[in-house]
Amino acid sequence: MEQVKIMLSEKELPQRWYNIQPDLPAPLAPPIHPGTHKPLTPEDLAPIFPMELIKQEVTMEPWVEIPDEVLRLYRLWRPTPLCRAYRLEEALGTPARIYYKDESVSPPGSHKPNTAVAQAYYNKQEGVKRLCTETGAGQWGSALALGCCLFGLDCTVYMVRVSYEQKPYRKLLMQSWGATVHPSPTNLTQAGRSILAKDPDSTGSLGMAISEAVEDAASSEDAKYSLGSVLNHVLLHQTVVGLEAKEQLRIAGEQPDVITGCVGGGSNYAGLCFPFVKDKLDGRDIDIIACEPTACPTLTRGAYRYDFGDTAQLTPLLKMYTLGHSFVPPPIHAGGLRYHGDAPLMCLLVNQNVIEARAYHQNTVFDAALTFARTEGKLCAPETAHCIKAAIDEALKCKETGEEKCILIAYSGHGFFDLAAYEQYFANELEDYEYPQQSIEEAMKTIPVVDESPGE
Amino acid sequence: MEQVKIMLSEKELPQRWYNIQPDLPAPLAPPIHPGTHKPLTPEDLAPIFPMELIKQEVTMEPWVEIPDEVLRLYRLWRPTPLCRAYRLEEALGTPARIYYKDESVSPPGSHKPNTAVAQAYYNKQEGVKRLCTETGAGQWGSALALGCCLFGLDCTVYMVRVSYEQKPYRKLLMQSWGATVHPSPTNLTQAGRSILAKDPDSTGSLGMAISEAVEDAASSEDAKYSLGSVLNHVLLHQTVVGLEAKEQLRIAGEQPDVITGCVGGGSNYAGLCFPFVKDKLDGRDIDIIACEPTACPTLTRGAYRYDFGDTAQLTPLLKMYTLGHSFVPPPIHAGGLRYHGDAPLMCLLVNQNVIEARAYHQNTVFDAALTFARTEGKLCAPETAHCIKAAIDEALKCKETGEEKCILIAYSGHGFFDLAAYEQYFANELEDYEYPQQSIEEAMKTIPVVDESPGE
Repeated sequence: MEQVKIMLSEKELPQRWYNIQPDLPAPLAPPIHPGTHKPLTPEDLAPIFPMELIKQEVTMEPWVEIPDEVLRLYRLWRPTPLCRAYRLEEALGTPARIYYKDESVSPPGSHKPNTAVAQAYYNKQEGVKRLCTETGAGQWGSALALGCCLFGLDCTVYMVRVSYEQKPYRKLLMQSWGATVHPSPTNLTQAGRSILAKDPDSTGSLGMAISEAVEDAASSEDAKYSLGSVLNHVLLHQTVVGLEAKEQLRIAGEQPDVITGCVGGGSNYAGLCFPFVKDKLDGRDIDIIACEPTACPTLTRGAYRYDFGDTAQLTPLLKMYTLGHSFVPPPIHAGGLRYHGDAPLMCLLVNQNVIEARAYHQNTVFDAALTFARTEGKLCAPETAHCIKAAIDEALKCKETGEEKCILIAYSGHGFFDLAAYEQYFANELEDYEYPQQSIEEAMKTIPVVDESPGE
Repeated sequence: MEQVKIMLSEKELPQRWYNIQPDLPAPLAPPIHPGTHKPLTPEDLAPIFPMELIKQEVTMEPWVEIPDEVLRLYRLWRPTPLCRAYRLEEALGTPARIYYKDESVSPPGSHKPNTAVAQAYYNKQEGVKRLCTETGAGQWGSALALGCCLFGLDCTVYMVRVSYEQKPYRKLLMQSWGATVHPSPTNLTQAGRSILAKDPDSTGSLGMAISEAVEDAASSEDAKYSLGSVLNHVLLHQTVVGLEAKEQLRIAGEQPDVITGCVGGGSNYAGLCFPFVKDKLDGRDIDIIACEPTACPTLTRGAYRYDFGDTAQLTPLLKMYTLGHSFVPPPIHAGGLRYHGDAPLMCLLVNQNVIEARAYHQNTVFDAALTFARTEGKLCAPETAHCIKAAIDEALKCKETGEEKCILIAYSGHGFFDLAAYEQYFANELEDYEYPQQSIEEAMKTIPVVDESPGE
């Protein structure tokens, strides 16, 4: 009988994270200070991040040891299964072999705790008592709540008010793990108060919530800030996913020809694909496909420029594909993919043509999710559905050409908290957004002009 | 480093279900016809169940082969992990070793698909095209929707109207797997129409939904009815859980001293404990503890009598602990435990003092769930929380006595669809119900009088 799940034992859990920085095909442009436009120093970041994470942000060591305490907690759900999607293959009639790496088995249901647990650990090590963060729909907030809970840290989450009110379930999950969750904007920070002074009924935004969380951390003696994607150290922690998948494929006697993943901030897909990117840079032929929504087409239509990470222009400037920090994507249900920029590491690899980007409309993405649910049994998150769509497209191409490709999917999360999105899909109420070029260019006008003289 | 998860490979999946019937310490009283009060014949059941399941209902073979097609689908999520709850043990400061068998990893998030997939298979084998069932909060309906989807059967679910309207998420899960879900009572059946004629605004009940599903199945050429608990064949299918757990504990070098599980209809706990019940009957000292809510104290305060399975008095009479088929439990959040009766097999073992029953209040049960979530990371269903409470009590007893007992928990499902219940708990809005003896006795007056002359 066919084997569906390729499992690793806990002893086979990777002991090190893979750092792609020394293997990059071009130098990574450094983050720069929003005021001086000079490269950021560790001291600039020290008020909000612990020193060990600042070091990981810039390290050129190819491997970083995973601390025992982090490994111990990873074992609550890791190694995660690599599954062969036999029934999907049969339904498509494809000669391709489709595998998916299932990160939905973690307690909050996504890849996010891989870094949440690590960040909580390093903060705890440096005497931090409380972590502050922002969250939109709550995927990241719930992961950090878990991470803090497991290490005995307090956790303060600024949750975009409209989500706080309309999507109470992830808020309750955070509270179950002991986090304090505030609907943002609040009266608790200067940033929040000034927003409320102008608009007492503000429903909030991720940009506002970032401002509040950073201010809270920077102004508290024993608190730091924590970010769930975009930064190098976050992507580093996620590589445990790809390292496991690589070993599992080796056991199955496979090497991937195609890898698909969805990209919002970039950490989920980087986690899976970076260990394989190294193989591609070493000469192996792999199609590495980053999937995003047409409603927020950062990689496919953005400019590769320095831009702010937030709408309030408070963060350092990062070199990345960006639609402009003032870009406001429509309210699509893949909330995790509604970011105007992307991780600099991911963007560099797209810019260097190592990773290819594709954008998809909502309805075609939900079609793919339903095909997956009705064959493999599992209901995925709307974000994850994007790369299932890409994998199905690739498998159908194989059906035409007869190629027996091995396709690997980054199955980043389940859809149990997203059933309202499925409801809209069933009711034919999902809109497929497509931007006129002019409106994209309009948002890009807010991207700051930075001197990028070579050799800096 | 300690090993948290004891995994079995797919090859180690049990190939047979364990049938407890030949090992029972007393003869099982047969189901009897509601009209004639004579033992039910296979012909009586043929209009609503396929013959193979009717055979399994009465077989005295100690083992029943699991068909290859069922094993193939079990492999989508089975074998499930057996986890050691190290962090819970540490938090309690107990010398006890606590394990939990995690059935929450199935696609709908509970043990239910173990029988749903098997029932769909046998129906498909006998040419059935569609299965009908009832569901309350939707746990069983979603499992059967999945089972039918995987075998290409149509699935019609009569969902209690109040749940259909107030808890839309499991309904959407069923629809994702292609099921047709009706809010019950409907205008589609005679039973539904007669209820609506009397009360056009009826919010429905499980009893009404059963009547509609049975009528739909019995009056359709190519449809049958499917039940998610109580009956012998359902409990048989669930023993795959206990057989796996037994092998996993053997690998860990353990034998359980205490086993806890929650009981609504009885199939979840029977699935885990029956293979160990055999050991107890063979002389091993094991405390097998069935946990129920004080709000529906079937095993702890019910009468061991023949009673109807439904409020409408349409089903066969079963010998079981019952609070009376007219008993209406209060709206506690452990919806899966709100049944006036229990599986006859489970009840016989309680009556024979092989299994002990305990009842718990809601708030203490949610306290236990939160302790578990904040140590082990996983948020359980309110039903599952009952046996976590019992396990914590037992572990704390070990702390007092110094006994190093091995405790096994039936972790039957996750709580992602029950966060509204946690919200009420956080808000101190959960009521702890306790019945005066008089009101229990009142409900029991509706239990029919049946001649149970010995030797029948």
